[in-house]
Amino acid sequence: MIKVAIVGGTGYTGVELLRLLAGHPQVEITAITSRSLAGTAVADLFPSLRGHSELVFSVPDVDTLAGADLVFFATPHGVAQAQVPELVQRGVRVIDLSADFRIKDIPTWERWYGQPHVAPALAAEAVYGLPEVHREQIASAQLVACPGCYPTAIQLGWIPLLESAAIEPSSLIANAASGASGAGRQGKTELLFAENSDNFRAYAASGHRHLPEIEQGLRNVQPEGSDPARLTFVPHLLPMVRGIHATLYARLKPGQTLESAQALFAQRYRDEPFVDVMPVESHPQTRSVRGTNMCRISLHQPQGGDTLVVLSVIDNLAKGASAQALQNMNIMFGWKETLGLESPALLP
Amino acid sequence: MIKVAIVGGTGYTGVELLRLLAGHPQVEITAITSRSLAGTAVADLFPSLRGHSELVFSVPDVDTLAGADLVFFATPHGVAQAQVPELVQRGVRVIDLSADFRIKDIPTWERWYGQPHVAPALAAEAVYGLPEVHREQIASAQLVACPGCYPTAIQLGWIPLLESAAIEPSSLIANAASGASGAGRQGKTELLFAENSDNFRAYAASGHRHLPEIEQGLRNVQPEGSDPARLTFVPHLLPMVRGIHATLYARLKPGQTLESAQALFAQRYRDEPFVDVMPVESHPQTRSVRGTNMCRISLHQPQGGDTLVVLSVIDNLAKGASAQALQNMNIMFGWKETLGLESPALLP
Amino acid sequence: MIKVAIVGGTGYTGVELLRLLAGHPQVEITAITSRSLAGTAVADLFPSLRGHSELVFSVPDVDTLAGADLVFFATPHGVAQAQVPELVQRGVRVIDLSADFRIKDIPTWERWYGQPHVAPALAAEAVYGLPEVHREQIASAQLVACPGCYPTAIQLGWIPLLESAAIEPSSLIANAASGASGAGRQGKTELLFAENSDNFRAYAASGHRHLPEIEQGLRNVQPEGSDPARLTFVPHLLPMVRGIHATLYARLKPGQTLESAQALFAQRYRDEPFVDVMPVESHPQTRSVRGTNMCRISLHQPQGGDTLVVLSVIDNLAKGASAQALQNMNIMFGWKETLGLESPALLP
Amino acid sequence: MIKVAIVGGTGYTGVELLRLLAGHPQVEITAITSRSLAGTAVADLFPSLRGHSELVFSVPDVDTLAGADLVFFATPHGVAQAQVPELVQRGVRVIDLSADFRIKDIPTWERWYGQPHVAPALAAEAVYGLPEVHREQIASAQLVACPGCYPTAIQLGWIPLLESAAIEPSSLIANAASGASGAGRQGKTELLFAENSDNFRAYAASGHRHLPEIEQGLRNVQPEGSDPARLTFVPHLLPMVRGIHATLYARLKPGQTLESAQALFAQRYRDEPFVDVMPVESHPQTRSVRGTNMCRISLHQPQGGDTLVVLSVIDNLAKGASAQALQNMNIMFGWKETLGLESPALLP
Repeated sequence: MIKVAIVGGTGYTGVELLRLLAGHPQVEITAITSRSLAGTAVADLFPSLRGHSELVFSVPDVDTLAGADLVFFATPHGVAQAQVPELVQRGVRVIDLSADFRIKDIPTWERWYGQPHVAPALAAEAVYGLPEVHREQIASAQLVACPGCYPTAIQLGWIPLLESAAIEPSSLIANAASGASGAGRQGKTELLFAENSDNFRAYAASGHRHLPEIEQGLRNVQPEGSDPARLTFVPHLLPMVRGIHATLYARLKPGQTLESAQALFAQRYRDEPFVDVMPVESHPQTRSVRGTNMCRISLHQPQGGDTLVVLSVIDNLAKGASAQALQNMNIMFGWKETLGLESPALLP
Repeated sequence: MIKVAIVGGTGYTGVELLRLLAGHPQVEITAITSRSLAGTAVADLFPSLRGHSELVFSVPDVDTLAGADLVFFATPHGVAQAQVPELVQRGVRVIDLSADFRIKDIPTWERWYGQPHVAPALAAEAVYGLPEVHREQIASAQLVACPGCYPTAIQLGWIPLLESAAIEPSSLIANAASGASGAGRQGKTELLFAENSDNFRAYAASGHRHLPEIEQGLRNVQPEGSDPARLTFVPHLLPMVRGIHATLYARLKPGQTLESAQALFAQRYRDEPFVDVMPVESHPQTRSVRGTNMCRISLHQPQGGDTLVVLSVIDNLAKGASAQALQNMNIMFGWKETLGLESPALLP
Repeated sequence: MIKVAIVGGTGYTGVELLRLLAGHPQVEITAITSRSLAGTAVADLFPSLRGHSELVFSVPDVDTLAGADLVFFATPHGVAQAQVPELVQRGVRVIDLSADFRIKDIPTWERWYGQPHVAPALAAEAVYGLPEVHREQIASAQLVACPGCYPTAIQLGWIPLLESAAIEPSSLIANAASGASGAGRQGKTELLFAENSDNFRAYAASGHRHLPEIEQGLRNVQPEGSDPARLTFVPHLLPMVRGIHATLYARLKPGQTLESAQALFAQRYRDEPFVDVMPVESHPQTRSVRGTNMCRISLHQPQGGDTLVVLSVIDNLAKGASAQALQNMNIMFGWKETLGLESPALLP
Repeated sequence: MIKVAIVGGTGYTGVELLRLLAGHPQVEITAITSRSLAGTAVADLFPSLRGHSELVFSVPDVDTLAGADLVFFATPHGVAQAQVPELVQRGVRVIDLSADFRIKDIPTWERWYGQPHVAPALAAEAVYGLPEVHREQIASAQLVACPGCYPTAIQLGWIPLLESAAIEPSSLIANAASGASGAGRQGKTELLFAENSDNFRAYAASGHRHLPEIEQGLRNVQPEGSDPARLTFVPHLLPMVRGIHATLYARLKPGQTLESAQALFAQRYRDEPFVDVMPVESHPQTRSVRGTNMCRISLHQPQGGDTLVVLSVIDNLAKGASAQALQNMNIMFGWKETLGLESPALLP
């Protein structure tokens, strides 16, 4: 049993962490913080946790957090980079679910997030928590930067192809759509039920903050000497709660086929417990991964042309955030990687 | 470990059983039947089960079923009553999720279901599987008739009051609403997405098949000599997938108050693992029990008048069907009653 | 052609007014006010109005408003009572969609709305804008208080019965549910898509502000000497955008039957253009009135007992607010009552 | 006033036609046919039409149909091609909402629709009913083939660019998503509410029947000598009822910019009543066109690169089917093109 603390537990990634940790046999949650709700019982904010949690939100306090073996940050960007340095110095391991430590190039981070980065040295040290790529470094990491939701779905959908240089990297198109929980639990007019039900729209089509994270991840797996991956990325907002669906378009290099691509995926993800390569020409549904750490992928080659379409689905709050954080934790502490993450999706 | 078979696994209660049993440590599923899909892998029909189940639907066969320790029937009414007698004779224990064995009065069953009952003797022997009332009989039962979804939510909302004769039993009103999964997985026009999204309506307002089951259950807990419980029950169809919400209206007897009623509930359900009596004047949400075996209840006394309003929510596929079936199984086999049913609700 | 101004046009009743007025041949909108969005084009806030409106939100200004023949108030309660007196004094006619002038008993208003009423004399003069009851007074009214959404659906469902003393008035139960647009266009966490999708709950079960308005309206149509109507009213929040569904329970007086009740409705609403009495035992759907001024009603007598169930549906933003306001305007200005309100519902 | 008949009025395009024609001042509907529902009142099938239509479904009869000035076919593919020839011979004008006469190349039609075409000569004569391209021919056409929903949204989004050869035509990508009403009103399991709510998926990613229609339309507007437009098209199913959103990716030719592209759209659609070119970097919402004949379009140039993203939204049942059919009718009969199509969208 380890002691775990959560900083910023009032959002959707927070309640998802609590849900998943409630079923993890090796974890005791010792603190969950919220400045605005200090003193409120977690189960009063999230009635789904009545009977599952006696926790009460507390004011963030570094000494309390430093008493934990592991601290999760489920905070808006900017918070973790201010608080993590002292925790790391005191030997606490940290999994940050925010964007603070995902980008290695600090000027890029600062441009997209519109503020100075206050812990650039830690950003350099942080391990990017995509287990399918960085499993070994995660195992010994002190600070893991958990990937974003879109970046997870999109990277897993292209990694086998880019590692093998099977597609042209310079004109990638990622058309993706997310459930509304991806926008967080904030009282904004544009996120109201009455604004989003029976409605669909793109957003940030001219540029979304996840773009540099995705490009960094894709370039990282390309063989040396490759043209760097370049991406057009258009996100959309779905009238549903959970789920990300990425529809990925790339040009196959000469000699590549649907079958050869499928073989690359089968081989690359053979031993991955949370990537499911479906039969060719399948259509993965977002609900088939609801509440789970699974990513399901399928391939299409429309009209036998040279465009390979990859469909990739995850649950934005699970494999796209909190369940992937648990997967990272399992790796960091040497437990079975699937511990606490075995339940099938809730369907229907 | 026991061997379990499922008859009729292609509907929503079937896939919910499979989801829950996948997390139960004492059960091995040895067969799942479907006449129409025999030969199809379960995970091909329900992709959420990819990686969780190697089962293949098979043609129902009594010898195969008789090899199990327990058989679940997740079939339309009429099926179980034809097949259960032989299984029972051969010593197999059965939990029937259909309506076949819920009603003790056979003419009543035949009137509401429009067909003759072919196993009336078994209906007399069957134990009604509402653990909060019949726990002891369930433990030793050979045949358990798992309650319907509306009947579960409604009975749990009135039992403490009727047992104590705290309300007038002759003019009960149950206004209830169900998610669309309650109508089953059948290709009917009226169940289409485009027919039910952004739409709400009552149905069967002049008489619904769950009425006699509810009245039977309510009368069963009344003290001898009481006026029998009489119910007006109007169900509604919600534009959502899972969940039942019952809004129950009854007249308090003189001397009863909101506080005395709340005390009755607190006392009655003190040791029940799956009934959560919330603080007075709460409003339970259906999503707070999504995917779980929990029933959450709260009480209101509008304007301090003599009408007591009980709000009761369950997940129609879980406490209203498959999870309650697991709870019954746990009782029948002497396991911890919460085994395999501990996960918190999926929220949001 | 008359000149019309709208005060408070940034909410859902405001945009619905604009949608409907765009199709009304006798109206020119001369001003629409919003303190916070002054200077913004209406079509920038509501892109559905691109090409239909050149209006720009302006700061509320009494002289501008006084230049109109008619002013609609689509504001939160408290606003109209402060501004209407001067307009009325200057001879402008007013239709107030808020709650400010609906309740005749000022202490009751003040208790439920938690603030002093600053224009009690006008509240006394105001005509309650339910055309099915007050058509004649509306025609000559200077100030019309447009009814609330729940009150419209519920009153229309009981008026024929109470006028004829066909039901017991002292134990009425109104179980009603509303689409999320009824809660307005405000950035509250509890109204987020991710909080309300696939979720259903009651709210304000211990007492809702529409209760006194409903009771006042019901008592108003009872024959002299009747026991006053007494109501238990529980509202619920539906995971959909538009629509109110009221399920009304009352005890029939001796001698009354489903048929006699149906005859009362048929007779009472024979000439009403916006009340549709459906065949007995029908189930009206909220989508069948979406975007229209129609109220559809059907009757049930479950199990032939003494409880009469009335189902009544409206669109909360239309007959429950803005379309009813147009109906009132048509009456006030002597136009055909259905002018601008003829379109069938949008289905599916 | 003209006499209009509708063949196949029991689906969603049928009820949408009836809704729109109810508000058209020049049309009298004289017959609506359905073999399976002959004798049923239209308003019994679609309660939204109660009070708006006295029509009763009748068995299709060529003499009755031949008595009309105009016949709409709202039937599955294969029906119109069998029945239209005789009507045309008898001088009746026809607007076919099905796919029967959209494709000029008969072998292509036969390959994608899997059956022989029985009226190839008429297919050659039929005018493709996209008014923004074929307005003049439509005016005098006897048979108009109304475009499909995806083809309308996608063609309108690329026509200005292809006419001006501003984009590379050989690697077009259309990622599109449709509300569930696009799949029709058929009782299929996969279209159930419980299957599609809170779910999103691609379908027919390897090849969809609308592809050849789109390519034909795009090539038709290209200047002579251009490389023919080649398309990758992936449709998706949205958990909502109405609306199509197309996200279109194309490579700008050298010298083209976001501004030059925007100017092409502004110029091309300047006089089009039903195409709204929004400011650059807008994000059109599907609900902003709900129930209307409008197409809203906006342009993006992500990261200033050479990929131009066009966002195009329509209502699949309106501009994607029945409202566009009315627009065609208005042109054919020399009425104002917007007649009966003036209402703003229903929002929220």
